[in-house]
Amino acid sequence: MSDMEKVRARLGELRVSIDNIDSALVHMLAERFRRTHEVGVLKAEHGMPALDAAREAEQVARLSALAERSGLDPDLMKKIFQMVVEKARMNHRAIAEERRPATRDENA
Amino acid sequence: MSDMEKVRARLGELRVSIDNIDSALVHMLAERFRRTHEVGVLKAEHGMPALDAAREAEQVARLSALAERSGLDPDLMKKIFQMVVEKARMNHRAIAEERRPATRDENA
Repeated sequence: MSDMEKVRARLGELRVSIDNIDSALVHMLAERFRRTHEVGVLKAEHGMPALDAAREAEQVARLSALAERSGLDPDLMKKIFQMVVEKARMNHRAIAEERRPATRDENA
Repeated sequence: MSDMEKVRARLGELRVSIDNIDSALVHMLAERFRRTHEVGVLKAEHGMPALDAAREAEQVARLSALAERSGLDPDLMKKIFQMVVEKARMNHRAIAEERRPATRDENA
């Protein structure tokens, strides 16, 4: 095997690992949204607000510390977290909207 | 236990699961960047480009299908994937830059 063939073989191995990790990430994220969906239903049923700023601040602090310890860029982690939380919050608002009694006048 | 206490207890359980999933996501992402770091070093050592558009298109197609099957919003998945890949690409460029022989005139 030439040097370049060895490099290509190693790259191929790394790509299989990266693909496996990405598949795991997709499934973990899907599972996270299943959990936040249940949170959204509970909150809508009991008239609780979609946003809990104190909880979110705690999450960011905990995950930032975890990111630093595991060698993940905390800024990237925060950006992804905000994107995921914003999507969960939009979903919560949609759930609350769906469950709101239809009291509005259609001609209003 | 009152109804509201039950709701708060269930919310608390869901939050523990969400926190566990988030910890797993942080660790999987950290591991992904360890793998892409090795890819970056190999590419830099052998003068290969940081970007592989065909590989990226394959990844997006595969992960979009996986997202749909697992109930994750494919658009959110793509946004996160692009953010992660862009960060990995920046890291690759930095690795290549570090390893480039210092041939430039400091006064240039």
